[in-house]
Amino acid sequence: MSLTAVIEGTNAAVAADPKNAHAVFRSHHDLVGVTEVTTQVGSGHRFIVDEPEVLGGGNAAPNPVEYALAALGSCQAITYQFWAAKLGIALDSVHVEVEGDLDVRGFFGIDDSVRPGFGAVRLHVQLGGPESSARYEELAEAVDAHCPVLDLFSNVTPVHRDLTIA
Amino acid sequence: MSLTAVIEGTNAAVAADPKNAHAVFRSHHDLVGVTEVTTQVGSGHRFIVDEPEVLGGGNAAPNPVEYALAALGSCQAITYQFWAAKLGIALDSVHVEVEGDLDVRGFFGIDDSVRPGFGAVRLHVQLGGPESSARYEELAEAVDAHCPVLDLFSNVTPVHRDLTIA
Repeated sequence: MSLTAVIEGTNAAVAADPKNAHAVFRSHHDLVGVTEVTTQVGSGHRFIVDEPEVLGGGNAAPNPVEYALAALGSCQAITYQFWAAKLGIALDSVHVEVEGDLDVRGFFGIDDSVRPGFGAVRLHVQLGGPESSARYEELAEAVDAHCPVLDLFSNVTPVHRDLTIA
Repeated sequence: MSLTAVIEGTNAAVAADPKNAHAVFRSHHDLVGVTEVTTQVGSGHRFIVDEPEVLGGGNAAPNPVEYALAALGSCQAITYQFWAAKLGIALDSVHVEVEGDLDVRGFFGIDDSVRPGFGAVRLHVQLGGPESSARYEELAEAVDAHCPVLDLFSNVTPVHRDLTIA
């Protein structure tokens, strides 16, 4: 299915019933080693998460904050593709680099005035294609306004946590 | 290296020079299909990201918002392991489930009053072990105060984006 067909189909489905706009995504995790975690997501895919040796792990896989940056970088790339289709902007290539600064004093509780997460993130986007720079700037503005994971980074998301003792 | 040794080593390294607390994480991405994205993170690991067929992809891998939820769930699991070691709390098992509600009207630009990211996230944590419930509640409070990806979800992270036209 072309992205234009996906966009038109979604518009029609949501117009028919706004409840069709509601999606729930899921992931399940088990700690299986010192820092190794097995993961299964709602679409059925499985993968693992681990920490590097310097953090006590076996470096069997990316760690959680690398997956978080990768969620952002890949969401940007896909949102460029969708919004280029929506705006009728020809786009030949998308390359995204993400860097995140993290002060480990937060995670380790060495200084509780330091946040445990990223203090700053830099996104470098490189586009290739035949359109004017102005068109790609217009595209980038549209992407940044509609990218789900950029929204997650840039705004507060309410998280409710419950705890069960087995 | 045991987690206790990692914790003590990090404390000593940061006491010797606070600059040792600064870490930079990275990821690089190329769009290689309709929605398929190749990813390489700073630790050297490579993986792919894709969208399901209903969103125009080939469902070759989890999509960006699934990776974002998995970053949260796995970060919780690993932070439980670290903080149990730090607080001297015996912990036999950690299972984490994450659910995120997403209204697709935001991503598709059908209604710009709807945020493109998750409107709400639910974290279900299940712990097993010999300690009292009060000790595990204490652990959960410490984890929630120090988990890097929970901080990313719960607070604003500054993101700077630049754009290059090739």
